[in-house]
Amino acid sequence: MRITALAGGVGGARFLRGLLRHLEHRSATASGEAPTRITVIGNTGDDITLFGLRVCPDIDTILYTLGGGVHEGQGWGRADETHSLATELAALGATPQWFTLGDKDFATHVYRSQLLGRGMPLSQVVSRLSARWGLPDLGVTLLPMTDTPVETHVVVEEDGEQRAIHFQEWWVRHQAALPAERFVVAGLDQATAAPGVLDAIRETDVVLLPPSNPVVSIGIILGVPGVRDALRGTRAPVVGVSPLVGGRPVRGHADACLRAIGVEESSAGVAGLYEDFLDGWLVDEQDPMPAGRPSARSRLEVEHRPLLMSSVDAAADLAGAALDLGLRLREDRASRVTA
Amino acid sequence: MRITALAGGVGGARFLRGLLRHLEHRSATASGEAPTRITVIGNTGDDITLFGLRVCPDIDTILYTLGGGVHEGQGWGRADETHSLATELAALGATPQWFTLGDKDFATHVYRSQLLGRGMPLSQVVSRLSARWGLPDLGVTLLPMTDTPVETHVVVEEDGEQRAIHFQEWWVRHQAALPAERFVVAGLDQATAAPGVLDAIRETDVVLLPPSNPVVSIGIILGVPGVRDALRGTRAPVVGVSPLVGGRPVRGHADACLRAIGVEESSAGVAGLYEDFLDGWLVDEQDPMPAGRPSARSRLEVEHRPLLMSSVDAAADLAGAALDLGLRLREDRASRVTA
Repeated sequence: MRITALAGGVGGARFLRGLLRHLEHRSATASGEAPTRITVIGNTGDDITLFGLRVCPDIDTILYTLGGGVHEGQGWGRADETHSLATELAALGATPQWFTLGDKDFATHVYRSQLLGRGMPLSQVVSRLSARWGLPDLGVTLLPMTDTPVETHVVVEEDGEQRAIHFQEWWVRHQAALPAERFVVAGLDQATAAPGVLDAIRETDVVLLPPSNPVVSIGIILGVPGVRDALRGTRAPVVGVSPLVGGRPVRGHADACLRAIGVEESSAGVAGLYEDFLDGWLVDEQDPMPAGRPSARSRLEVEHRPLLMSSVDAAADLAGAALDLGLRLREDRASRVTA
Repeated sequence: MRITALAGGVGGARFLRGLLRHLEHRSATASGEAPTRITVIGNTGDDITLFGLRVCPDIDTILYTLGGGVHEGQGWGRADETHSLATELAALGATPQWFTLGDKDFATHVYRSQLLGRGMPLSQVVSRLSARWGLPDLGVTLLPMTDTPVETHVVVEEDGEQRAIHFQEWWVRHQAALPAERFVVAGLDQATAAPGVLDAIRETDVVLLPPSNPVVSIGIILGVPGVRDALRGTRAPVVGVSPLVGGRPVRGHADACLRAIGVEESSAGVAGLYEDFLDGWLVDEQDPMPAGRPSARSRLEVEHRPLLMSSVDAAADLAGAALDLGLRLREDRASRVTA
């Protein structure tokens, strides 16, 4: 089986870890099944250069989470982390100081920056980092959405003046509390999907959208030229998980992002962003969802269920439900073709 | 009073710390004396780029030593250091692993590399680092010998084949145990002395040469175009401290370096390297030194005394002796001009 997932940071990483747990259980009960290959297309839209080093927050969160090195409480960064380097940079007066980088985490950025500086494409760097975190052994191929450096800026209004700040400054420093006028992803329209990205969407059995931010994570991946078309054209069902419960994000600031782009802060609103390619949609038990809302490809199959990933097992249940829905839609489709 | 010193790493830094201690005592006994200004011209010939970051070992040793942050036992690197980043880089398979870099030390290299990457000259970067370590308050201006990146390579012979390795690989990894055929300082002949370097030699009261390596520390500074001429032309006396005791270096591998360039491993041999500008020379009590060996400028004034800097106070005594000799030679000269 081949699964392709588009993923942002913490929510995406936890969903994927749940998916791996689910597949473990599945293969334990159904012996003889061929191992599942998972291709993850990671968001690089919130990448940032700090202290001259290239930082890829979403990619690293996926690496650390799947590789067992993540700081569980935070959801990002490394477990058992120290902060000598950041403390010394502060003593040197280096800025910014609002982005937390631990010593172990710094090693990732130093290594990546060194390889990028030699001219290695980001996708190859991510492949090396994946090897360090054992992703190949898990059957996971992690691809950055693009090798082209892109950066998301947020246009905010303060004291009647508009100015653009880096997405991370808005997200981390201001906790998305400054009302955003719009997002500008510098370089995105000229970006090229990284090698393997479009094929992973076209030639797969199921495409999954974890409950990642629909605007600044999944939304940015969708903006990479060719990705949206590949999703529209793939024969694999596309199943998403709503990032909202009762109109509010479980974590992060998806509501503020939706407000900024003028989209209703609801699971239905998010489904609308995906309506040209979405086949299945998992929403919270209590969330209203216009029944049988038509999508461009077919009727949208909506399933109500608990969305909270309060443990790895809960995430495994959720990922399993998304996968099962995808496989069912795939069988339906196959039988329709046969019939 | 103005003092200018040419300095390498550990030996130079400890001598300079001794000089500051000596000047403290001096000003405590002679109140009303104007504060002394010390300009240190630091060697950048053994700089190296590691993990894409620019490392300036000698400059940093001076900063850490004078600023009170040095690892006293090692003589280089930071006190109370951790090594998370290097451990993680090793897990990533990044090389080399023979050069020890601690987490606090890494911050210096990250900060420097960021500023250099923005186009800031090294001398301005060093000025910022100096501020962090309080050098201005000590009356010390630290200048890199040049803003031009230079790198020393060592030609070694192994199994009948000659090959060039970076100086640090020879020095740190091989502990100078591979016989060196010669040193090649890439970029040195095209380098320009950093702003202030030549003036600091020409317009000063005393020039001091700490017991730094005469070949790969002081010798490289002397190779910066204009430096040797400035030393020959300055009216200030130039007083050096031999780095050898009984033909052997107190620390480091000055003997191996002298062998490589075919110079006698003795205080007399080292003085010969400086003979076109040296006025005063401090050698160990038991070291033979051809009495009254003529220098190009005048007779060379040789003083025998203990050279071991076994404590800050011992270093202060040594630096004080060098300074006193310089001031005496200066007075002699002034009285000759008057007479």
